[in-house]
Amino acid sequence: MLISSEKQKAVMTENGTHNGVSNGTTSEPSALSEQELEAINETWTLIWNDKKNNGIELFIKLFTHFPESQNFFKDFKGLPIEEVREHKKLRAHALSVMYALKSFIDNLDDEETLDALVRKNAQNHAERGVGEREVKMLLPAFLELLNEQLQEKTTDLHKSAWTKLFGVIALVAREEQNHLK
Amino acid sequence: MLISSEKQKAVMTENGTHNGVSNGTTSEPSALSEQELEAINETWTLIWNDKKNNGIELFIKLFTHFPESQNFFKDFKGLPIEEVREHKKLRAHALSVMYALKSFIDNLDDEETLDALVRKNAQNHAERGVGEREVKMLLPAFLELLNEQLQEKTTDLHKSAWTKLFGVIALVAREEQNHLK
Repeated sequence: MLISSEKQKAVMTENGTHNGVSNGTTSEPSALSEQELEAINETWTLIWNDKKNNGIELFIKLFTHFPESQNFFKDFKGLPIEEVREHKKLRAHALSVMYALKSFIDNLDDEETLDALVRKNAQNHAERGVGEREVKMLLPAFLELLNEQLQEKTTDLHKSAWTKLFGVIALVAREEQNHLK
Repeated sequence: MLISSEKQKAVMTENGTHNGVSNGTTSEPSALSEQELEAINETWTLIWNDKKNNGIELFIKLFTHFPESQNFFKDFKGLPIEEVREHKKLRAHALSVMYALKSFIDNLDDEETLDALVRKNAQNHAERGVGEREVKMLLPAFLELLNEQLQEKTTDLHKSAWTKLFGVIALVAREEQNHLK
């Protein structure tokens, strides 16, 4: 489960979900502590304050770490990275991802809504062949962006918090990919 | 064009788009004035402040005005409206729409980004058979919700502003539906 709390246990008993992730057969990310939740909220504000540029940088880092990921976007296939950076479709996609992440982070305290939001996003992406693997590819790009925004002062707490959150998103992505099979 | 300003004319000359909408062959919504832009920003804050409930109410109103629209969602088909209201997939869909609208409204001053965001959203929906007609069905539900939030004090300015914004979204939806044909 993602959040370790008494409230969380009650939610688990009531409807079999925990912190937004339905109880499945796949392995589960470990719980996010209250400190980790705070760390996510605090550091997210930095990213969100310049969402347009940070969203673009996130994708540029993804394409730099994993050049093959550029091919997921038919408009960017084969383009030099500097042309991709200026592409208006990158700006739109990057902003969409930022608004989706914001919707998740705004609902970290509402397990059922969080589950439904992450799952809906995962379904849309699974239909396009984007899933667990791609979420995992995005994490190092995100952590690098965060470290730059924090002027190289990312702590272990920041890293564990965001790694767990991406772990939840990846887990739901895998579940929704399996549903399509 | 959506915004009538000197800046806007410059944007039109430079890249053939105006206020986010590519110059197409379809009829175009008339310009949004500065007053209308302010009216959108002010009234949107009211809606956004309770986005979860307002998003749900928006869809309940849509399904009430146009019962056939409930069938766009396979999970809701045939369900009594009170069961739809409590459905966690409605909450997720409603919130997704609210975050998408927010991304548009946050970018009313950036024509190119607005165009790319509205178009990306329209493409995703067109692939699912949701387009111009459905955007137009959503407008009366939105205006009714707004009127309730404003305690029956919606002005002609509010109505014209939101009607024009929905007109732009509907126009782009039509263009993207035509691209799929």
